[in-house]
Amino acid sequence: MTGTFSKDTFYFKDLTITEAVNKASLPPKESLSFGATFSNHMLEVKWSAATGWGAPKIVPIHPFELHPGAKVLHYASECFEGAKAYKGPDGKPRVFRLDKNMQRLKNSVCALGLPDFDENEARKCIEELVKLEQDFIPEGNGYSLYLRPTVIGSEANVNTTASSEAIFYVVCCPCGPYFSSKFEAVRLYADTKHVRAWPGGTGGSKLGSNYAGGVVPTKLANQKGYQQILWLIGDDHQVSEAGTMNIFILWVNEQGELELITPELDGTILPGITRDSIITIAKGWGEFKVTEGRITMDQILKAEKENRLREVFGAGTACVVCPVKQIGFMDSVIDIPLEPGSEFGPVTQRIFDEVTSIQYGKKQHIWSTALE
Amino acid sequence: MTGTFSKDTFYFKDLTITEAVNKASLPPKESLSFGATFSNHMLEVKWSAATGWGAPKIVPIHPFELHPGAKVLHYASECFEGAKAYKGPDGKPRVFRLDKNMQRLKNSVCALGLPDFDENEARKCIEELVKLEQDFIPEGNGYSLYLRPTVIGSEANVNTTASSEAIFYVVCCPCGPYFSSKFEAVRLYADTKHVRAWPGGTGGSKLGSNYAGGVVPTKLANQKGYQQILWLIGDDHQVSEAGTMNIFILWVNEQGELELITPELDGTILPGITRDSIITIAKGWGEFKVTEGRITMDQILKAEKENRLREVFGAGTACVVCPVKQIGFMDSVIDIPLEPGSEFGPVTQRIFDEVTSIQYGKKQHIWSTALE
Repeated sequence: MTGTFSKDTFYFKDLTITEAVNKASLPPKESLSFGATFSNHMLEVKWSAATGWGAPKIVPIHPFELHPGAKVLHYASECFEGAKAYKGPDGKPRVFRLDKNMQRLKNSVCALGLPDFDENEARKCIEELVKLEQDFIPEGNGYSLYLRPTVIGSEANVNTTASSEAIFYVVCCPCGPYFSSKFEAVRLYADTKHVRAWPGGTGGSKLGSNYAGGVVPTKLANQKGYQQILWLIGDDHQVSEAGTMNIFILWVNEQGELELITPELDGTILPGITRDSIITIAKGWGEFKVTEGRITMDQILKAEKENRLREVFGAGTACVVCPVKQIGFMDSVIDIPLEPGSEFGPVTQRIFDEVTSIQYGKKQHIWSTALE
Repeated sequence: MTGTFSKDTFYFKDLTITEAVNKASLPPKESLSFGATFSNHMLEVKWSAATGWGAPKIVPIHPFELHPGAKVLHYASECFEGAKAYKGPDGKPRVFRLDKNMQRLKNSVCALGLPDFDENEARKCIEELVKLEQDFIPEGNGYSLYLRPTVIGSEANVNTTASSEAIFYVVCCPCGPYFSSKFEAVRLYADTKHVRAWPGGTGGSKLGSNYAGGVVPTKLANQKGYQQILWLIGDDHQVSEAGTMNIFILWVNEQGELELITPELDGTILPGITRDSIITIAKGWGEFKVTEGRITMDQILKAEKENRLREVFGAGTACVVCPVKQIGFMDSVIDIPLEPGSEFGPVTQRIFDEVTSIQYGKKQHIWSTALE
């Protein structure tokens, strides 16, 4: 095989495909648990400081042979993305805003000293993987193929400098709806002890290191009867994120305006692609104010007391939106109004419907790319 | 093989040893670069939530077969230790305070939702590995075998809950002296932009995630002519750590007392074992005040202006102590006095001599265990 090798990027035109001989079939879609089932193939591209990027390969999914001294195992030299492919009524596979994921992944590799690449070349390679795996996109509302682009530093060396070897790869997990028929809006535990991100830290990039510290605090919140943590920052308890999601609040603000507000991207907030989509859609409606700003728990408590809280929801790739019904904060429990008989507030529901219509190709939109 | 299997720990009595058939020899010791050369064997113990810990095994060093969806590659489900084995004038291998490393590793696994274990069983297994690898402990002042106990979450699942599978392992790197004949005291760049640790975060545990964000800022500091970062916290620029080391300052404090001060363990500071050793030794001398407290850059600037700064050094396993000659902070460069013609201040040198005498068994001490 001849290919183009460059220090700067890998190229779609060098992509080779080796299909698995023994392919698994998509398991019954009702049995899927998020993140546990993988499709038959993966995309893999190797890099070394000495020779640059190799050619991208789609190959049968396989374990990595990683030296026990590989930097990714010691210093969290790792970053990732979450995207989804959908199959709509026309039967065509579609990907949602994958260009934005690739832009964000480029920021992440730069934050870690891992190798940069061209976002369009990477996107085209992933789209080819999705086309090959289209039988693994379960059909039906709420079903999708979760895509996990990842870059790891694989050099076998336990000094703390940047890795001189890396692997860019993508695995795919078929997954079911986040909202089952038994779904209930979640309760968030506003954690005043554990802090996810902080000014000057890495919270604004999608790095593996941002997730390690959240596992145990989330378990503790679960034991208190809360599904997710509401992460806070600072002595004034600024609202940050909800679990692994961005957070949105619909309220009547202190100026008496109906406002959808989400924390601004000040470096501590993950620039969520669902977040960005919701802001764009809601601004397009022009029916209420849409703000990226600063929100403190005191403001939320005051809004509750003055009956100005309307809806609260998390936003992320896994769920699109996740309605919140209560926030536990110190000695208070803040109740969020919900539609009678529904687990969704009306604006939350409308945003969910709008985003998913685009994702499944029911509504034509530049964000949803049908792969032919 | 029959062994004891328990959910709670693994046992030294179940340890098996499989020696490598083709053993590499220790490379010429002058050629060793920290963290790049590994010895012939590793210790490995597997755990799963379903069956608990398996039996510990010393086996030829080998790559792990890790699923590309393994949690360690996505969510930094990883923690580690750094310890050293030395060969002193009596030719016996010795380990320095390995019991403390195992206590700290237990804290780390608990912080990540990884499995706990018995620290003494782990220590005894590692000592057995050191005995087997004693030909890989290079002899001579400054030479040692660096030990890297590590625990990773290996479950193939990209949901963000705790890993249901894990591997405890130890690899060994022969390494040379940190201080070559050309060694110069280092310059620290007091970074006001990037922040390593923060209240409510994980900076007080030795997790892989604490290191990911430091690679690029350190490279930027290197480009400015500084060897390491002096990490700061908060609007008042509290001194935190120096690169991957704890920091110590010897000064005449504002009360006119000669004082060795290091940041207190408030959850943002790694509880270094070298740090603890230095505090204990210096307190034992009883010649100056030894304080774990809070230090701000303003206090350091004031001390410099009033000629009260005596010595500054980093402390860690790799170097024991690392003298500092300058700190760059905003528009200032703070000069630290050094002995004429020396790169070490006198107290820094004395601490180095004392700790290394114990490590090499030249001075008998409970911290240094000779392995028979």
